[in-house]
Amino acid sequence: MLSKNLDKFIRSLHQAKYRDQQQLFLAEGPKIVKELLHSSYQIKILLALEEWISAHKSLVPREVELIPIKQNELDRISALQTPNSVIAVVHMGKKTPSGQVPENDLFIALDGIRDPGNLGTIIRTADWFGISGIICSPDCVDLFNPKVVQATMGSIARVRVDYMNLAELFQAKPAGLPIYGAVLDGVNLFEQPLVPRGYLVIGSESHGISGDLLPFITHLISIPSYSKGKNRSAESLNASVATAILCAEFRRRSK
Amino acid sequence: MLSKNLDKFIRSLHQAKYRDQQQLFLAEGPKIVKELLHSSYQIKILLALEEWISAHKSLVPREVELIPIKQNELDRISALQTPNSVIAVVHMGKKTPSGQVPENDLFIALDGIRDPGNLGTIIRTADWFGISGIICSPDCVDLFNPKVVQATMGSIARVRVDYMNLAELFQAKPAGLPIYGAVLDGVNLFEQPLVPRGYLVIGSESHGISGDLLPFITHLISIPSYSKGKNRSAESLNASVATAILCAEFRRRSK
Repeated sequence: MLSKNLDKFIRSLHQAKYRDQQQLFLAEGPKIVKELLHSSYQIKILLALEEWISAHKSLVPREVELIPIKQNELDRISALQTPNSVIAVVHMGKKTPSGQVPENDLFIALDGIRDPGNLGTIIRTADWFGISGIICSPDCVDLFNPKVVQATMGSIARVRVDYMNLAELFQAKPAGLPIYGAVLDGVNLFEQPLVPRGYLVIGSESHGISGDLLPFITHLISIPSYSKGKNRSAESLNASVATAILCAEFRRRSK
Repeated sequence: MLSKNLDKFIRSLHQAKYRDQQQLFLAEGPKIVKELLHSSYQIKILLALEEWISAHKSLVPREVELIPIKQNELDRISALQTPNSVIAVVHMGKKTPSGQVPENDLFIALDGIRDPGNLGTIIRTADWFGISGIICSPDCVDLFNPKVVQATMGSIARVRVDYMNLAELFQAKPAGLPIYGAVLDGVNLFEQPLVPRGYLVIGSESHGISGDLLPFITHLISIPSYSKGKNRSAESLNASVATAILCAEFRRRSK
């Protein structure tokens, strides 16, 4: 049974303001919860249907508060359109600057990605391609937005995501380290020499890479369009799709 | 001003049942509406804010009913979370089987794609890469779902999408035509010979390619993972991301 207070508390975590205040976020669905149980994230509360509990009880550490709920209660507190079996209330964990310098690694830098599905999908893709970390500009969507968490499909448990001023980051980068930027009028990706280190910058869904970051880009690259018709083709690719094609190409080259 | 009847009518088109009945769908936002105005789709009604009308009136053919509305009316009738300036009510157009046989072209076949964002993004990606058409299994999400239309970013106006039984389609295909299938344990994409013709089959978000289609697949291919950690990586890629990486690789090879 869900108390009124707990109901209200969970639903408050749909909002960034209360997530920040409490340093807690929600993660929903058996897949993501399972990944988080195996990660360094600490789960505070699990609210789950009886079926989930009887199948997964042995996985739940003793310090986690496990609360059985009914389907209608799940539907009410979920932040998703199709709630699924279990909701975790998770500690954000301490955010210390990672101090990583990508001298031997490729990092993704996201400049103003606003769509939660895009950020979540980029995190999932980065996990698949072994990207060391993601740096978000401060105006990117909140990592702990329930739709971001959902779209990562559990990869949030494995990919490091930091928020920082990208201009300052690039200013302080070691000399000679490449900064690749995805743009619409750059060098053909398939003809551009690529080394798997430095930063790959992806601009916002509506404005691309912001003007104050462009001077830092050492290699402007474009995914070529192969549209055949006399009509114009799509003006651009979705940001998470572009990121994925670029990551795949970086990895293909450095096999 | 929006009459009560028109308000109700527009909102009924949020549902597939009424879209089918009326053979009409909604398309929202200046970008998509502009693309549709330049396409073979016929727009029946445009409901728009005064700003949009004064900037775009010259583009609107005389036979289109143009109705000025206020922001609060737009918010009420929109199917989107962030309505934007204009909503079009569009005729679906006659669906005759395309009769195209992909002997010299690559087609995408989608098997049970349920997420509207994924279908829309795949259509946008297909447009970018000059894919001749998309064949959806009947259990894919409805092409005219407002979230699909939105995610295509206008590419719905240019990419042919048909719904048909994929097993029947593959049974009738010319001998020797390849059917590539994206799976998790196939041949490494980057080591698989590819010819840009036939079908590329993408399975559903949760179950992959269905068992009854697998016997038709002539080439099982996988996007390799490059995850470095000791922890497991992402179990799979998002369906629209996988489609995009595959399309890019097909196009790179046939340059």
